[in-house]
Amino acid sequence: MKLYRAGEAAFDEALERLTSRMEHLSPKVLKTVERILADVQKGGDKALVRYTERFDGLKLSQKELRVAPSAFKEARRKVGRSTLRALEFAAERIEAYHRRQVENGWFYQEGEEISLGLMVRPLRRVGLYVPGGKAAYPSTVLMSAIPARVAGVEELAMCVPSKTKRPNPVVLAAAQVAGIEEVYRVGGAQAIAALAYGTETVSRVDKIVGPGNVYVVAAKRAVFGVVDIDMLAGPSEIVVVADESADAAFVAADLLSQLEHDELAVAVLLTPSETLALEVQREVAAQKRGLKRKRIINAALKGLSAIFVVEDLRAAVAAVNAVAPEHLELAVEEPLELLPLIENAGAVFLGHYTPEAVGDYLAGPSHVLPTSGTARFASPLGVYDFLKRSSVISTSREALKKLAKPTITLAELEGLDAHAEAVRRRMRSRRRKG
Amino acid sequence: MKLYRAGEAAFDEALERLTSRMEHLSPKVLKTVERILADVQKGGDKALVRYTERFDGLKLSQKELRVAPSAFKEARRKVGRSTLRALEFAAERIEAYHRRQVENGWFYQEGEEISLGLMVRPLRRVGLYVPGGKAAYPSTVLMSAIPARVAGVEELAMCVPSKTKRPNPVVLAAAQVAGIEEVYRVGGAQAIAALAYGTETVSRVDKIVGPGNVYVVAAKRAVFGVVDIDMLAGPSEIVVVADESADAAFVAADLLSQLEHDELAVAVLLTPSETLALEVQREVAAQKRGLKRKRIINAALKGLSAIFVVEDLRAAVAAVNAVAPEHLELAVEEPLELLPLIENAGAVFLGHYTPEAVGDYLAGPSHVLPTSGTARFASPLGVYDFLKRSSVISTSREALKKLAKPTITLAELEGLDAHAEAVRRRMRSRRRKG
Repeated sequence: MKLYRAGEAAFDEALERLTSRMEHLSPKVLKTVERILADVQKGGDKALVRYTERFDGLKLSQKELRVAPSAFKEARRKVGRSTLRALEFAAERIEAYHRRQVENGWFYQEGEEISLGLMVRPLRRVGLYVPGGKAAYPSTVLMSAIPARVAGVEELAMCVPSKTKRPNPVVLAAAQVAGIEEVYRVGGAQAIAALAYGTETVSRVDKIVGPGNVYVVAAKRAVFGVVDIDMLAGPSEIVVVADESADAAFVAADLLSQLEHDELAVAVLLTPSETLALEVQREVAAQKRGLKRKRIINAALKGLSAIFVVEDLRAAVAAVNAVAPEHLELAVEEPLELLPLIENAGAVFLGHYTPEAVGDYLAGPSHVLPTSGTARFASPLGVYDFLKRSSVISTSREALKKLAKPTITLAELEGLDAHAEAVRRRMRSRRRKG
Repeated sequence: MKLYRAGEAAFDEALERLTSRMEHLSPKVLKTVERILADVQKGGDKALVRYTERFDGLKLSQKELRVAPSAFKEARRKVGRSTLRALEFAAERIEAYHRRQVENGWFYQEGEEISLGLMVRPLRRVGLYVPGGKAAYPSTVLMSAIPARVAGVEELAMCVPSKTKRPNPVVLAAAQVAGIEEVYRVGGAQAIAALAYGTETVSRVDKIVGPGNVYVVAAKRAVFGVVDIDMLAGPSEIVVVADESADAAFVAADLLSQLEHDELAVAVLLTPSETLALEVQREVAAQKRGLKRKRIINAALKGLSAIFVVEDLRAAVAAVNAVAPEHLELAVEEPLELLPLIENAGAVFLGHYTPEAVGDYLAGPSHVLPTSGTARFASPLGVYDFLKRSSVISTSREALKKLAKPTITLAELEGLDAHAEAVRRRMRSRRRKG
């Protein structure tokens, strides 16, 4: 693992590269996606069938686009008891956490004349994309679907690409644990198009959530506005801030667990301890030898990943806020002293015994988190993503009298005399009380 | 105003057109915007100066991009006392409403071993776009800036196009009332580019809010992901649901106040009362004669605006939920009976004495609302738009023991053995307590 020391020019350059990381979608990807979206919007199911054969090598009839109910039972049998138990254990914890995020509407009155409020309602129908490429991710099913379910979303439609007519049983079992009955064997940009525009088989949704490859990301960006989307997910990332109290073996293990995700994953250590930095560097080299996904890890290590030896913890925090990482571990003696200083991070893991892995699966918060520095302005997927609000305003005739003059002044200032007239006309009327 | 009766084929067609309204940005606009964004990203201030001369006919030096502090004082003097008082009255009401939207973070413990939480923080820096074309909109300054200020946003940067070196004094006065000190004489896609990427003079922001023309909307869509955006605003709309208790003159006045906004504005009446429908039709024709913006109103009436005579109020509510209007007036005897049935609407105005105009200026809720049917999934601009969250997870060694087995099961299921290893290694270690 590369190692940079504060004061070196290479340190500043590497940190700057890290801070300005942001995935750019290639014009070629965008063009391909545009064509797929237009085809599905026009051709509906037929286009889905065609693209599924072309990209996933899977020949489906129109009827087979949707996974039959019997497949869920079969999947449950197939995955076995201990997997089901683990999924259910995780689901319960995720649900318990997200119940705390439920929001309620409210109203208040000014005197008896003005009532103001905010109605809060769940979205009606949500589409959930689950990647099915290199590996199966049942955890993503739970982490996306459960916040929606807790919010009160009635309909959850899941799309997952599959190379065979039997979708991954673990993913199906997770869908069932999360209460999803509607699953389609469709992936990529064509799945996003189906969810956004609707086809004969797939009804359109109000919002699409879930991670995916660059085609999925480009498609989500393109349909944003027609439907809502959660975020534009980039490669997964971790920053570990560690002091001399940290265990180098633990830190190395966590960096490696991030790097095994994919070749573009990023793992960074910020520490004021040169000793720890060197130990972690050795541990990474030693531990990775025993790991199955060594090849991916080695590829990822060629990217932005690095160890930075910083001046002090304050400098580490400043770097964290500039980088705005998806995952942040505070592997320090007193994590609660640093926490209030953290401005930008998707999820924060405190102390030496909170590995990111526990958050990835079942601590409670969703593992769908803002990447690529978007933690500057974006939040973890949560119940709030599946709620929408309506303002409510009620004024009586008496109240309108008090509000009339400044309203008319402002309307006339903006040259909108019909606005002023709508108020004036009510003031002139003697017909009734409001 | 066109009038359709339930049962007629034309009724269904008109309602279907209304339901599927959605602005599509022309490829020509998208291409122009792409070029402007690239130019500003590369050329910085120089590109801003060039585009401001080309599009606004305003020659500025680099230094003049930002409005000088002295201009604010001058603006205050110019607008006069009664305008200032109206702006301050509105600002106070808007602030009072939005204070109710403030959210706090929280933590909870499971036993003494697991702590879970959610940190809530304001965005640091927000860009506010204020249109400056056909009219000046001081109300939009207040309605966008005050929710941000209440959320705790430190820096607010406003962009407003101007044909002269003296920006509209009312807009500047509103900016000052809203606590904005940083104003740039830049508009259109070039303003959005400056806010998203930053230039020598304009620092980049975390989120861009505020309405604008199609170029602004296309630019906001294009920079989404680099920064957050509030929404993609389309033409303004109102749906009025009225029963025989409604005053036709009031309803007509409110429809007209919507239509005067611009040629693409939409105003719709849904009523079970044929009598009221015909009265409103007559009133619209009569009232519009006296209005300054008659030409705009006549143009808008050629669009989707119409009166629909529906079977009953239940049918009206179903139509509302399908249309998902920006503004909804319930001009009925018992508005509180209908309110719980409303699923999709930006803002709801109750009863006969709550004209939309009062919500546009100073009732309290923001007038920046979801248009074009996006109320299906989007909310009024609010404090929540300027907050972001970070999940927090803390587990002790003892707690990790309990979570270890299912975590390892799920990690291995996904083929991620480094994840499993990060947990196992901590279980094997005897070095310390967590």
